[in-house]
Amino acid sequence: MNSFGRLFKTQIFGESHGMGAGIVIDGCPAGIPITEETFEADLSRRRAGAKGTTPRKEADLPEIMSGVFEGKTTGAPITIFFRNMNTRSGDYANLVASPRPGHADYTGRVKYGGFNDYRGGGHFSARLTVGVVAAGVVAKQILKNVEITAKLTEAGGSTNIEHAVEKAMENLNSIGGIVECTVKGIPVGLGEPFWDSVESVLSHAVFAIPAIKGIEFGSGFQGSRMTGLENNDNIIDANGKTETNHAGGINGGITNGNDIVFRIAVKPTSSISIAQQTMNFEKGKVDELVIQGRHDACVALRVPPILEAITAITLTDLMLLEQKASRVYE
Amino acid sequence: MNSFGRLFKTQIFGESHGMGAGIVIDGCPAGIPITEETFEADLSRRRAGAKGTTPRKEADLPEIMSGVFEGKTTGAPITIFFRNMNTRSGDYANLVASPRPGHADYTGRVKYGGFNDYRGGGHFSARLTVGVVAAGVVAKQILKNVEITAKLTEAGGSTNIEHAVEKAMENLNSIGGIVECTVKGIPVGLGEPFWDSVESVLSHAVFAIPAIKGIEFGSGFQGSRMTGLENNDNIIDANGKTETNHAGGINGGITNGNDIVFRIAVKPTSSISIAQQTMNFEKGKVDELVIQGRHDACVALRVPPILEAITAITLTDLMLLEQKASRVYE
Amino acid sequence: MNSFGRLFKTQIFGESHGMGAGIVIDGCPAGIPITEETFEADLSRRRAGAKGTTPRKEADLPEIMSGVFEGKTTGAPITIFFRNMNTRSGDYANLVASPRPGHADYTGRVKYGGFNDYRGGGHFSARLTVGVVAAGVVAKQILKNVEITAKLTEAGGSTNIEHAVEKAMENLNSIGGIVECTVKGIPVGLGEPFWDSVESVLSHAVFAIPAIKGIEFGSGFQGSRMTGLENNDNIIDANGKTETNHAGGINGGITNGNDIVFRIAVKPTSSISIAQQTMNFEKGKVDELVIQGRHDACVALRVPPILEAITAITLTDLMLLEQKASRVYE
Amino acid sequence: MNSFGRLFKTQIFGESHGMGAGIVIDGCPAGIPITEETFEADLSRRRAGAKGTTPRKEADLPEIMSGVFEGKTTGAPITIFFRNMNTRSGDYANLVASPRPGHADYTGRVKYGGFNDYRGGGHFSARLTVGVVAAGVVAKQILKNVEITAKLTEAGGSTNIEHAVEKAMENLNSIGGIVECTVKGIPVGLGEPFWDSVESVLSHAVFAIPAIKGIEFGSGFQGSRMTGLENNDNIIDANGKTETNHAGGINGGITNGNDIVFRIAVKPTSSISIAQQTMNFEKGKVDELVIQGRHDACVALRVPPILEAITAITLTDLMLLEQKASRVYE
Repeated sequence: MNSFGRLFKTQIFGESHGMGAGIVIDGCPAGIPITEETFEADLSRRRAGAKGTTPRKEADLPEIMSGVFEGKTTGAPITIFFRNMNTRSGDYANLVASPRPGHADYTGRVKYGGFNDYRGGGHFSARLTVGVVAAGVVAKQILKNVEITAKLTEAGGSTNIEHAVEKAMENLNSIGGIVECTVKGIPVGLGEPFWDSVESVLSHAVFAIPAIKGIEFGSGFQGSRMTGLENNDNIIDANGKTETNHAGGINGGITNGNDIVFRIAVKPTSSISIAQQTMNFEKGKVDELVIQGRHDACVALRVPPILEAITAITLTDLMLLEQKASRVYE
Repeated sequence: MNSFGRLFKTQIFGESHGMGAGIVIDGCPAGIPITEETFEADLSRRRAGAKGTTPRKEADLPEIMSGVFEGKTTGAPITIFFRNMNTRSGDYANLVASPRPGHADYTGRVKYGGFNDYRGGGHFSARLTVGVVAAGVVAKQILKNVEITAKLTEAGGSTNIEHAVEKAMENLNSIGGIVECTVKGIPVGLGEPFWDSVESVLSHAVFAIPAIKGIEFGSGFQGSRMTGLENNDNIIDANGKTETNHAGGINGGITNGNDIVFRIAVKPTSSISIAQQTMNFEKGKVDELVIQGRHDACVALRVPPILEAITAITLTDLMLLEQKASRVYE
Repeated sequence: MNSFGRLFKTQIFGESHGMGAGIVIDGCPAGIPITEETFEADLSRRRAGAKGTTPRKEADLPEIMSGVFEGKTTGAPITIFFRNMNTRSGDYANLVASPRPGHADYTGRVKYGGFNDYRGGGHFSARLTVGVVAAGVVAKQILKNVEITAKLTEAGGSTNIEHAVEKAMENLNSIGGIVECTVKGIPVGLGEPFWDSVESVLSHAVFAIPAIKGIEFGSGFQGSRMTGLENNDNIIDANGKTETNHAGGINGGITNGNDIVFRIAVKPTSSISIAQQTMNFEKGKVDELVIQGRHDACVALRVPPILEAITAITLTDLMLLEQKASRVYE
Repeated sequence: MNSFGRLFKTQIFGESHGMGAGIVIDGCPAGIPITEETFEADLSRRRAGAKGTTPRKEADLPEIMSGVFEGKTTGAPITIFFRNMNTRSGDYANLVASPRPGHADYTGRVKYGGFNDYRGGGHFSARLTVGVVAAGVVAKQILKNVEITAKLTEAGGSTNIEHAVEKAMENLNSIGGIVECTVKGIPVGLGEPFWDSVESVLSHAVFAIPAIKGIEFGSGFQGSRMTGLENNDNIIDANGKTETNHAGGINGGITNGNDIVFRIAVKPTSSISIAQQTMNFEKGKVDELVIQGRHDACVALRVPPILEAITAITLTDLMLLEQKASRVYE
């Protein structure tokens, strides 16, 4: 379903080229100061604009539709909505017959019997992440002493990110990237031993972000090539501090008080301006497709604030579950 | 919590050195043939025994405690229990004071206020996966035309697995590995667009397996270094067959009918026989720890049947949700 | 939380005197025809207007904000919003100090640390049921061959409803009532044996309606005074038809194919114009309270369409769970 | 499904005439003292034995299979199992062809395609409540300062319970009853405003008990015949104490700190020794059925300890959700 979380629950809705995109946050503690302005910093980080991101610009003005009274959350569900302003739906007309390689056009059509809104990816669009960023802003206020930082560490396989993006744009092609996230200030004891390990719930949430195809915690895939002696983290004080952090802050699925560290693989944007081959369902044969519309050459550039939001949402839920955050904000 | 799934729900319980380990399967269709013998093949694959796995041997005899009548599932919850036979709890006495590096000893103690069963990792032990394998056997019967295969593709960073394991054993050390899973015969349309993408739910389940620290779908991390043109999979027929499978069978979080392919990183076993440094809470200072007990030199050797089971459980749930599997077996 | 359902999930939001009230429906099958007009008939039944209901009039114009494309549901979450037009918040100013007897003023304040929106009951208001009615309209389209009818059978303890209401109005007092709901055309086999019996899930949903304080199925409380021989329903054909229907269509928590019949007790509206005694938290002592604002003399008059909607929502979920309704509408 | 609760979750399993019946409690705080003896008092109250209850006697010896270490809960799932000792399955052979009026024989068969365990009602049996009583014992320890008392207030429509039961036995008939439950010591603020009102979750749980057909809170059905002035409870101190308690301790779905009071209607036991008419599926026509086996003349006699357990389980979950109970017992 389109909801996530057990105590801090987010329900997403909306479409890329419909009326807009939004989120309902259910279970948010009462008393958190929120105004439309609170969201601006993170929304502007997510917004397109840097070289290599789509020329479609959206103002992203949050409308708080419920759950806030006199500038503070009330404990009732908070609804935040972002109207779509800048849509050019005509761009997508030819995709009904010809599903784009790498997109949800084909899977969405089969799953929903052809009733899905195909314009701009519809409900599958990265447009939906605008609500997630808004929920992340609320979550961060609950995680007062926690610091979450995500950054793009490589793009197109290179650490010279700017250069890689420029080259992709020149070639009318696209590139992917790796984003690393570090969380400081998390208490020991979040997560649950079997099905709801911290890795389980974080990865569950992270793979909601369109274009993510991999995740690793701590030493991750590289750790699988190390020995136990190399990979184990010696515990060096009574608070559980470890000498190294190959576990990425998580042992047995439970936070150990050290930094949570994980990395995600962002695939190259599927929409590219180079002609591609795909099944044309109207003609009944494979044919050339040239994708119109406006696209990101490197969608990974926009992922860090979204990843921070997803992480904040997930950790807030774990903090409430473990009673490390309160139902009334103080 | 210790349960997973929405319509095919598994509730795990048990401890490494308690009475045993088990699972309750709730929501299983009625009419599936099940006897104690049905489980033997997969249990024996999981069981310790190959060179490099722990000398602790458990008979792993499944007791079907509920939900089966006259050799068939009834639609009521199925409980399967495995009694522990071969426990040497004395081995773990010194771990109360000295949490093992890389283990849940420290996190478990803090989370549960010191009341956790520390013997052999207690509820955090890989022993719990015996119930998961049993549930996987049931799930596979529901997934009649689906074929799930997991194999260890490298250990200790090498594809010469036998040699790598031997070397680790000689050194009293341990190694990790990479396990790849392929699923054939899955229909188009499983998974849900945002929070419950197929990657989300599969990774959620997979990170329940102890020692897993990474997962990637299709081209995964390598794909993040490719261009869009290279990574996109051209659709070449009306059933959605693609020329390549960099997406690992999943677009927009929804299965596209091609093979689901993913890889997981298994960390080197934390328990090694080499002396390590850790905080000694009794002495109040860092001290040397030598771990007693019987361990796997390469726990990844035992992961494939567990991973297949986890995958079968997850896909069964998705099949039931999408009404591609029936509530009464035919 | 403010959501209900497992496969057909409704997330409610909004306030009586805030921007409005709405609902997100997640898991709705694709292809269902929906326009703003579809909702009018049921909304007008719920709307105030008859003698004995509040003079506050709301236009109740549904805004479909997501999940519908070219007049049909897409399979993505459907959001329906109703803006509040006719609010007089000043009426509620004195209730901050003096919680109304029988209302959520006191409990809401304690639970949310004083941050709740108290105007008109805020999120506790019956205003929220407008979204429920809208969701019920969608649900009814999925339940094509099912007929749900609720009617007020008595008010103020009398079957002469009109007269009872008039008398209550004259006295500046209020009355309650009994509403009976009958469901025809439900297949055998909905519901689950233990925790999720049909009685369990229906009553769970029904007690979401403000002012409901009792529910009974079939012969209910009266049946507890009968003998087994009197109360048992003889089965008289191979489709499970019974001679009588004291079970209200449910045996062992599972529908038996006969009509589902249940009755609910609606308490008299708490807001009355007669002076009452309550704690005045400003003065620190019990004091007289005269409630301003516009109220229903008999809120039970408005319950039938809400109860039908709640029933439709619940049964749709059960039908999808049991695969008696499809994920794509045909 | 067969599980209930969000943070204190109970998963039920077992059959009347299979190996036994049990429960898994997931989310129980660590550190609660539990031994097999802890359960004895409540189990013996539930156990058959008084005049008017079934002559089938079960020892009801609890086996704690997981989650308890050195006499205390560990925070891991607790499994408690009760082996069936005294079964006479032959008694039920004729019920395959002839479903008993008022029972789940017919609905169970249709729902599970004939694969259900029909012996003694199988998974639908009141035998399953033995696990619920055990979970209630654990819950009560978490609810340290809360007092839950249920009592049978009438049987067969009469307050002279002993006499009514005797008369039913003489007639080979059965009778129902009314059970009232009172909860003292609950804090203000449990429950949630819309779908998860306290009435919603309590009734959801209560209707899991076989034979329950009605529930009312506070003045309930009688209250629907009162005026607002009569039914409203004046608040008389700063802790929310009310003069009367027609609300049954719940306003707007939230506890108000006064006693929670509710009553349930228990139908007369369906199994009676008088001949009844029912469809005989073997003969293809309605025929006489005489039920063999051992039955309760008044199953309501055994309901009070079960209702207390159900109430304790539900309130524990609400207490944990609202952070009024701790994850580690102190």
